[in-house]
Amino acid sequence: MEYNVEVKISLKKGMLNPEASTVERALDLLGYEVENTNSYNTITFKIEEENELEVNKKVEDMCQKLLTNPVIHDYEISIK
Amino acid sequence: MEYNVEVKISLKKGMLNPEASTVERALDLLGYEVENTNSYNTITFKIEEENELEVNKKVEDMCQKLLTNPVIHDYEISIK
Repeated sequence: MEYNVEVKISLKKGMLNPEASTVERALDLLGYEVENTNSYNTITFKIEEENELEVNKKVEDMCQKLLTNPVIHDYEISIK
Repeated sequence: MEYNVEVKISLKKGMLNPEASTVERALDLLGYEVENTNSYNTITFKIEEENELEVNKKVEDMCQKLLTNPVIHDYEISIK
């Protein structure tokens, strides 16, 4: 079966997010007042696998090996 | 009232996404066969505004002026 996978990769709590703080400062300069700005990246792909359990195991491996840096990133896998 | 805003910023269809193709190639080298790899960025923030219509108008402005490059990006605003 073919599964659609989404991996949401965000910085762990407490990590500085220079992209988000730059956006917040720039919005402020343009006159927009916003708070708690944050940003995260999402990777999506399709994978052919027998069942969802197997997909989850493989994607978990991909995250540990390549997609994320587990030292600084949190990730959330969703499979449809 | 305080609103939580999420802006999902993706490349327009047909634009090359080098990040996604690099990920797909790297996964392939590690032995994982995936297809249709794509990636997008999401910016989240809180904003104080009177009503949702007003929030939508402001965030639409922010997208046009700063958050996205409308020539190459599509964006989706969600407000909670």
